[in-house]
Amino acid sequence: MLVKPFWASTFDIITEFCYIRKIMEYTLNQINEIINGQVIGDGNIKITGVASVEVAAHGDITFIKGEKFIEKGVNSKASAIVVHRVIDELKVPLIVDKDPFMAFVRFLEVLANERMESEPGIHSSAVLADTVKVGNGVSIWPNVVIRDDVKLGNNVTIFPNVFIGEDCVIGDNTTIHANVSIMGKTSIGQKVTIHPGSVIGGDGFGYLQKGGKHVKIPQVGGVQIGDDVEIGANVTIDRAALDKTIIGNGVKIDNHSHVAHNAVIGENTMLIAYAKIAGGARIGKNVMIAEDVGINDHATIGDNCIVGGGSNVYKSLAPGSVVWGSPARPLNDEKKIQSIITRLPDMRTKIKELEKWKVKSEK
Amino acid sequence: MLVKPFWASTFDIITEFCYIRKIMEYTLNQINEIINGQVIGDGNIKITGVASVEVAAHGDITFIKGEKFIEKGVNSKASAIVVHRVIDELKVPLIVDKDPFMAFVRFLEVLANERMESEPGIHSSAVLADTVKVGNGVSIWPNVVIRDDVKLGNNVTIFPNVFIGEDCVIGDNTTIHANVSIMGKTSIGQKVTIHPGSVIGGDGFGYLQKGGKHVKIPQVGGVQIGDDVEIGANVTIDRAALDKTIIGNGVKIDNHSHVAHNAVIGENTMLIAYAKIAGGARIGKNVMIAEDVGINDHATIGDNCIVGGGSNVYKSLAPGSVVWGSPARPLNDEKKIQSIITRLPDMRTKIKELEKWKVKSEK
Amino acid sequence: MLVKPFWASTFDIITEFCYIRKIMEYTLNQINEIINGQVIGDGNIKITGVASVEVAAHGDITFIKGEKFIEKGVNSKASAIVVHRVIDELKVPLIVDKDPFMAFVRFLEVLANERMESEPGIHSSAVLADTVKVGNGVSIWPNVVIRDDVKLGNNVTIFPNVFIGEDCVIGDNTTIHANVSIMGKTSIGQKVTIHPGSVIGGDGFGYLQKGGKHVKIPQVGGVQIGDDVEIGANVTIDRAALDKTIIGNGVKIDNHSHVAHNAVIGENTMLIAYAKIAGGARIGKNVMIAEDVGINDHATIGDNCIVGGGSNVYKSLAPGSVVWGSPARPLNDEKKIQSIITRLPDMRTKIKELEKWKVKSEK
Repeated sequence: MLVKPFWASTFDIITEFCYIRKIMEYTLNQINEIINGQVIGDGNIKITGVASVEVAAHGDITFIKGEKFIEKGVNSKASAIVVHRVIDELKVPLIVDKDPFMAFVRFLEVLANERMESEPGIHSSAVLADTVKVGNGVSIWPNVVIRDDVKLGNNVTIFPNVFIGEDCVIGDNTTIHANVSIMGKTSIGQKVTIHPGSVIGGDGFGYLQKGGKHVKIPQVGGVQIGDDVEIGANVTIDRAALDKTIIGNGVKIDNHSHVAHNAVIGENTMLIAYAKIAGGARIGKNVMIAEDVGINDHATIGDNCIVGGGSNVYKSLAPGSVVWGSPARPLNDEKKIQSIITRLPDMRTKIKELEKWKVKSEK
Repeated sequence: MLVKPFWASTFDIITEFCYIRKIMEYTLNQINEIINGQVIGDGNIKITGVASVEVAAHGDITFIKGEKFIEKGVNSKASAIVVHRVIDELKVPLIVDKDPFMAFVRFLEVLANERMESEPGIHSSAVLADTVKVGNGVSIWPNVVIRDDVKLGNNVTIFPNVFIGEDCVIGDNTTIHANVSIMGKTSIGQKVTIHPGSVIGGDGFGYLQKGGKHVKIPQVGGVQIGDDVEIGANVTIDRAALDKTIIGNGVKIDNHSHVAHNAVIGENTMLIAYAKIAGGARIGKNVMIAEDVGINDHATIGDNCIVGGGSNVYKSLAPGSVVWGSPARPLNDEKKIQSIITRLPDMRTKIKELEKWKVKSEK
Repeated sequence: MLVKPFWASTFDIITEFCYIRKIMEYTLNQINEIINGQVIGDGNIKITGVASVEVAAHGDITFIKGEKFIEKGVNSKASAIVVHRVIDELKVPLIVDKDPFMAFVRFLEVLANERMESEPGIHSSAVLADTVKVGNGVSIWPNVVIRDDVKLGNNVTIFPNVFIGEDCVIGDNTTIHANVSIMGKTSIGQKVTIHPGSVIGGDGFGYLQKGGKHVKIPQVGGVQIGDDVEIGANVTIDRAALDKTIIGNGVKIDNHSHVAHNAVIGENTMLIAYAKIAGGARIGKNVMIAEDVGINDHATIGDNCIVGGGSNVYKSLAPGSVVWGSPARPLNDEKKIQSIITRLPDMRTKIKELEKWKVKSEK
């Protein structure tokens, strides 16, 4: 059920467009073809929306994660529920799957894709250099501007007002959302999603001090982004001074994050919102960087590290480190220190009492 | 005095355009028709600009807030001053109003609106789906792209290069500035302003860990924004995973802030720059979140709380709490702790002295 | 070697476009004409790329900074190296210059400029008000929208999807990158670069509290940006409430930074990423604000101050202050305090022991 691009006057009016609550029209059996569980009850009922168990209304399908949510399921107004076992108290049709959340996610994926897919085509207002190479099934929306020697793989979707600089490569099945700027010499892998407003390949921030002025170090390197990467909204990933800034396969980057020039982010690492990865930092694989964390320039963060929210990491971390705080310390040390800081007024009082006693004793 | 859109070649050249210093041409009497105070002196003088009392030049009107600013008024080069009472030392024409700042603001509102108003019309380069419904007096600037089933209320202004996804609703008198991206299924109330570069309805950041990889939880909910909301530049408000992310009536959000999926912001709450509201957090009404504050996911912040700048709030707060610090503590506790932290070197010295004394005494 | 704009169908196909690794074709002698050093060895070899000494491959030119990098030079695969003296161990052709990094930068500047230059012209999709004045050599890319009474100096380049509001002035040789929004009444100097996604002149965040609601203080001032300023990606600089927000000559501002209304940034000051300069703050000349620093509203930071990363500066700083921490303290104080904080558990233990001793002694 592809969504036809609305600008395509040669296409029919898009009546089959189906998005979540609006005119979603699955039967429960059709949903189960996606979920691949077991339908209990009337599989022919029509489902017109998805919602959480608390919010669901008539027509919606929802899910419960396990035993302790059964009461919520009983009180829900949902018309169908995905559950982990047959539950007699639930009076509506069910889909049973041993992992109901994951099962529900499989259906959500189909809905989310419907929302994003557009039929192939290049809008007449898009401006592409003659040397741009475009794969099969590519969808380029209005006002997209693409410079020389860019290569777009198959099934790439570029939403409106995106700018792509010269010499970029974008892999198959990648989606670039509205108002994104991708500067020249950026290489992006397959199945990547970049959310609106992000800037990939802006100049790194590098200057020489000379005669009391800042002389710019020209930033002539590139950015290389792997496969299965997701980049949030209003993120910035700067080009390298020389060589490349690298984002590994499977990396997920949340809104407002910043990866500075020549940083390297290892595979499957996650950067939560406002991650600040300074120049030349090297983050390992499977690292979890929580919200609002700063990593110092040229610091090395080993594989599998976890950095707690709000931390500033000034020094390199061995693989598997779990740290928190500013400056970041081993988690348990920081917890102990924070707990003592709370008791500082009490400590101060005790020191004063000890001093009084000393003075008295010495008399 | 509407500003005609400049693309409208059928309109006259816009010579009456009036913006602040440039060709602003009010008489003092005309300004007082807006302010509704009392003119003292020559009401026929021409006013060609607005400025602060220190900066004001000949032709400008300014204001002073009260008694202690009289000397500044005397030294000002302004041609007219809005004041709280007749002040003989001021040798220029006055407008008297018991709240001169508020009175001055009433005039500034007129100036600011002049700057933003454009005559209705849809620029020929805008691309609207056939199913878009447009109210009266709507002004759609060049390169705006609007997807299917969007409804725009009356007097909505959409500045250039804005993208609006499918199934959005935008209320009367709302203004969307340049380069904003509003993703599908966003509902926006009346008299809302969204400043440039903001992203509303980008995907929330949600993943399941499965087999060492991050499996995306599709984000298929929406965003609902109330009336009289103002959203700064380069803000991001993510869509809900399911259900809605909600911004209440009268909420004001400053630049670079981030409201994550499924968060709820209560009425008249204020988020100053770089507010980081994590997923599912519930912020009450009339809360003041100062600059660079993080609120933990699923935390509940009661009505009327005040959170000081730079704080990280890890736990829920009762209504009316006033907190500061990272982690956030009651304001007075944090102030005391900060004051003691400054004296830590002294405390350490004292402990050392006490220990020396102990060693000596025990001999 | 100007890059012709690709939309210019009347121009030849751009075959001479030369960008870094791709089809860069300098001989070493040609590079030395730019560097102005001394060629040692075969000056006729072809150089097709630039890279760091570790990454360089056959065809690349690189540099080493001094004696301690000689071994890296020996192990490098570069085809030519810029060095500080003749070094016999290096078996490839050399360019000798007493400051090899600076010499290399001179060549990089040429490469970087090649990438950015475009031949003059205004794309047919750009929408300019009739009253816009355009200097010589201006290059305006697709989908740029410019409102009334804007003046663009000579050799200004405006990349795609930029919006420029009414009454702006942009100086000679300034470059505005894609998806930037410049709101009305902004004045920008010469040789300024603004990277993608930034917003200049959005409304400042100012409200009066009245009857439990936030009444907006209209923001009718402007923004003034000096010469030789560089502004990173997704930065916001707000317009003043009245008067001007001012960015001095030579200021460099990194990604995600925010300069609030009526702030003043002195000449040659540097704001690293996520600088948060609150309303009315006055930052002096040659100040270095490290990453993720907050400066309080109306604080004055004297000339030549250095503020360490992650600091929050609540009070004004005398010229030449070097501070760190949150709240910011003199650097050495903060270092001492941080070192003591690490030992807090130990201090607490010692206090407990002293108390036990006291109790015992007093028996």
